[in-house]
Amino acid sequence: MSAIPEDFIRRTARLSEDVARPFPNSRKVFAQGSQPSLRVPMREVAQHPTHTSAEIEENPPITLYDTSGPYTDPSVEIDLLRGLPEVRTAWIEERGDTEPLDGPTSDYGRSRAADPALAALRFEHLRGPRRALSGRNVTQMHYARRGIVTPEMEYVAIRENCRLAEMRADPRYARLLRSHAGEAFGARIPDEITAEFVRAEVAAGRAIIPANINHPELEPMIIGRNFRVKVNTNIGNSAVTSSIEEEVEKLVWSCRWGGDTLMDLSTGKNIHETREWILRNSPVPIGTVPIYQALEKVDGKAEELTWELFRDTLIEQAEQGVDYFTIHAGVRLAYVPLTADRVTGIVSRGGSIMAKWCLAHHQENFLYTHFAEICEIMKAYDVSFSLGDGLRPGCIADANDRAQFAELETLGELTKIAWDHDVQVMIEGPGHVPLHKVKENVDKELADCLEAPFYTLGPLVTDVAPAYDHITSAIGAANIGWYGTAMLCYVTPKEHLGLPNREDVRDGIISYRIAAHAADLAKGFPGVQVRDNALSKARFEFRWEDQFNLSLDPERAREYHDQTMPKEAHKVAHFCSMCGPNFCSMKITQDVRDYAARQGLSEQEALERGMQEKALEFVEKGSALYREV
Amino acid sequence: MSAIPEDFIRRTARLSEDVARPFPNSRKVFAQGSQPSLRVPMREVAQHPTHTSAEIEENPPITLYDTSGPYTDPSVEIDLLRGLPEVRTAWIEERGDTEPLDGPTSDYGRSRAADPALAALRFEHLRGPRRALSGRNVTQMHYARRGIVTPEMEYVAIRENCRLAEMRADPRYARLLRSHAGEAFGARIPDEITAEFVRAEVAAGRAIIPANINHPELEPMIIGRNFRVKVNTNIGNSAVTSSIEEEVEKLVWSCRWGGDTLMDLSTGKNIHETREWILRNSPVPIGTVPIYQALEKVDGKAEELTWELFRDTLIEQAEQGVDYFTIHAGVRLAYVPLTADRVTGIVSRGGSIMAKWCLAHHQENFLYTHFAEICEIMKAYDVSFSLGDGLRPGCIADANDRAQFAELETLGELTKIAWDHDVQVMIEGPGHVPLHKVKENVDKELADCLEAPFYTLGPLVTDVAPAYDHITSAIGAANIGWYGTAMLCYVTPKEHLGLPNREDVRDGIISYRIAAHAADLAKGFPGVQVRDNALSKARFEFRWEDQFNLSLDPERAREYHDQTMPKEAHKVAHFCSMCGPNFCSMKITQDVRDYAARQGLSEQEALERGMQEKALEFVEKGSALYREV
Repeated sequence: MSAIPEDFIRRTARLSEDVARPFPNSRKVFAQGSQPSLRVPMREVAQHPTHTSAEIEENPPITLYDTSGPYTDPSVEIDLLRGLPEVRTAWIEERGDTEPLDGPTSDYGRSRAADPALAALRFEHLRGPRRALSGRNVTQMHYARRGIVTPEMEYVAIRENCRLAEMRADPRYARLLRSHAGEAFGARIPDEITAEFVRAEVAAGRAIIPANINHPELEPMIIGRNFRVKVNTNIGNSAVTSSIEEEVEKLVWSCRWGGDTLMDLSTGKNIHETREWILRNSPVPIGTVPIYQALEKVDGKAEELTWELFRDTLIEQAEQGVDYFTIHAGVRLAYVPLTADRVTGIVSRGGSIMAKWCLAHHQENFLYTHFAEICEIMKAYDVSFSLGDGLRPGCIADANDRAQFAELETLGELTKIAWDHDVQVMIEGPGHVPLHKVKENVDKELADCLEAPFYTLGPLVTDVAPAYDHITSAIGAANIGWYGTAMLCYVTPKEHLGLPNREDVRDGIISYRIAAHAADLAKGFPGVQVRDNALSKARFEFRWEDQFNLSLDPERAREYHDQTMPKEAHKVAHFCSMCGPNFCSMKITQDVRDYAARQGLSEQEALERGMQEKALEFVEKGSALYREV
Repeated sequence: MSAIPEDFIRRTARLSEDVARPFPNSRKVFAQGSQPSLRVPMREVAQHPTHTSAEIEENPPITLYDTSGPYTDPSVEIDLLRGLPEVRTAWIEERGDTEPLDGPTSDYGRSRAADPALAALRFEHLRGPRRALSGRNVTQMHYARRGIVTPEMEYVAIRENCRLAEMRADPRYARLLRSHAGEAFGARIPDEITAEFVRAEVAAGRAIIPANINHPELEPMIIGRNFRVKVNTNIGNSAVTSSIEEEVEKLVWSCRWGGDTLMDLSTGKNIHETREWILRNSPVPIGTVPIYQALEKVDGKAEELTWELFRDTLIEQAEQGVDYFTIHAGVRLAYVPLTADRVTGIVSRGGSIMAKWCLAHHQENFLYTHFAEICEIMKAYDVSFSLGDGLRPGCIADANDRAQFAELETLGELTKIAWDHDVQVMIEGPGHVPLHKVKENVDKELADCLEAPFYTLGPLVTDVAPAYDHITSAIGAANIGWYGTAMLCYVTPKEHLGLPNREDVRDGIISYRIAAHAADLAKGFPGVQVRDNALSKARFEFRWEDQFNLSLDPERAREYHDQTMPKEAHKVAHFCSMCGPNFCSMKITQDVRDYAARQGLSEQEALERGMQEKALEFVEKGSALYREV
């Protein structure tokens, strides 16, 4: 790790071809907002027509929420050396409440910038940081509470709707828009998301828009119970393995498969430089756990951590553009003994670092005692809090115990302090929880933390499946999302076992997109069932390509189909690869419909008339064969 | 497929080495019942001791429910040519209500037995079939209702308990037995399963023991809401691909990973012979959908199906030993039009076959009209009904619609008829259902079908993830299992796309073992949390080997760990592969405990005393730093 290869930048500047290619039969479209710079990217999937014996029916394109950023837009030339286009700079400048700084104001940021040994791996086009003018507060919450609808708010409103109004106005979508009424457990999801609704939700603290003023490359998104359920992914090198170029590629990979936000949990060398590369190339909000880097700075000795060092780290990262910080301020000294009888004690890294510090010094957690000062830093850059659950349960046995809930209550207390500073807050949650104890977590979070958005890791609903914890946790995630969690932190198959590789990351993200979408369906979020309906219609009509293209992972769907039926002709085959022509139920159902059609009637009429005629005949014969249904 | 290779039997007689090897650090143990032949196999996983600075703590062995049969018992010599040892023959003979027949009584069975062209692929050691004496009823339900506790009932009682009483009496398990109280939604799970409880549940129809008298190789198991949630797997060749030897190996593979029952859904050639090989080598109940084979006999022309042909197929399969039949008797003619407006019509193969037949003949489903005659056959061999859900929803949009529920109501009506014949019944359920509509399925099934065990496919909670439908459906399966479904039919990653290979089957089964275990935990089934607790304790203590060995898939857990930390030494490393030594929260927590221990106190005492002393000090200083918790 110590030797930096000379060809680093050249190598890093290239993404693998499969990481950034456009999705099949899809194009990047933009929904235009109220000003020219407000263009909200979406993915539009074209569909093939349906060929029936009688006619050719058009199938309209389906618009999907798109997290992949400019990487899937063939009209954008990607240059990792320069970073992504700046979406937000003009909006930030127009507000007139910030100033560009000459350079980093943190000690650590300055020392890294000045170190010639880092030249080979430093991001080339460093932009000076920006900070709120003295006395100004630049958080989205602050604007919201003053009644200001920011471009970021309008952006996320358009993004959440995904052209639903257009679909509703277009008769081609009438049948595709059919959907079940949801059960939202008290969430109040409007029929259409307006910018004013976004403002009100942000003002109330029920939603956050993580958007550091030093991350203008960001395509804004919103996290809240009355919006689409989001997915966070984690990447990060460590002392053991991984490197910067891998991390950047993982970021792009994460966005490709549907990660809405990304946490850089690097704990190895060159954390600062890795983060710069990630931020400059990230269309999604980036979160960190600053205590990890602070600990690196004291060579892993938790007891040597100080508030001053931590404060410098916060400023260092805020000036790079980190959008949210996990802060373990709820791990209070008095709660630590509550974990002593647990099966798995304290499993949060941040939680155990702070617990160790507290015990070493016999003092209260300095993150708790300095919380207001942290708020002062956050509001100067608009960094959102992700209040960490350092005492989350690490196994089923420890779920919902007193240590966990004591910390959660403290997080509620801290939420109020943050809101006094107009700083945006979300609350981290567990972890490992059996299915029947999941809802209690949401209910308590909503009550204790005043409906601040909940952001949970899974939860895993059993401990017995290492190597499959993307699945154990997707089960918990779907449920907790349904109950009201706003963002789900993904888990990969390597959880508890090792560092995820690229395929593990993909498996983890897709599992969580499934969970989030299942939750959106169950909550009845307007329009989300269109994708299910369109894909199922394609499936039923043997439009294999459309089925693949509308799926969460078109590439793998096609690959699996190819394994059984590799020939291109089979992509239009009117029978299933599983059963063969005689046994395909969908083919038989089509035969049933054709049978009705041959009689010159609509299916429904034909069937009903057939029934009625036969029924009459039988009724006359005194048979009870056909009964009313 | 037409050419039968001459070396077929020799090749079939060998299992791949990895299909049948014992699990690591595990041994097959037997819990002895009330008679010598009643020996219930279980898997016992030995654990390593915990080394602390002060002492060596023994970790007791963990007993696991074991579906793998003799294949993982090194003391049993497996010979696929001869089939498995007969567990039940003496029990069946002792009842004195059956007679051995000279040979098959079905026309088809006789013709296949007499066909010299099939010699190369016929199972060699064919045993003549057995049938109830005239006028006798040999179902487990019939015995149960007469107050008879059969060896099968005692067997499953012992099996369900998994040595819980022994653990409760052994102080080494005291901490491992800690568990959450469950939420069972009206299920009445006793603190210990007795043979009498099993009898009463079977008598009431709330549970079934699928156990054809012609399947004496079976290790009995029970399916019911007040027992452990079970997992069914599907295998089967088709006209497109796959072969007999692959199917037998898939059977063993399915048992290995935790399939409790297995359905042979073959639809290609040589279905009869494939089934014989499977049955003779299967320690788990085998189910089929007889209409599939019946359709093969009329070359795929549904309209040519007749009751007589179907009846012959039932007898053919019953005399081979099939333990449960899926019968789509609820697809009534009058319900077919209810599917015409669906997004995906009729997606059940059996359902669409019967719908096609009904419409072709304008007659009521012959399975419905001949239902009592089917019962007569079932009770002569003790074949259980799995009443098929031919109108199950094939997509989210069609979930819980009138077609589905009309059929379910009819299945309730048929359940009563079957019970009048003392024939065991379970009810099949969907399919594709959004999360918030899942519970309604269970509630309605319990009400309409009088608590007959529910057996569901998934359900998939979204349609948008082909290639990941083991996950979309495991989410639904965990929930529906928690709500009261007794058995979960697995789904593989290839669902909707292609035929599953061995790895797909493994992925599907493990996903469903996760769902079933999550449901058991949530319902509070006694003793099931021991495995979670033991594995989590091992994880926390860096006993990597024990963590692997206690997991649902020890081989993959180890493989994934090896990918990051391949060296053997790392298996005892006291830090995580993910984070490196300084960042491992578990290591830090151990440091916290050691810190307390160094003061010569128990952890709890040390921490509490530390708190109190500091608290006093601060209280004296007027600080509110330490608050009561």
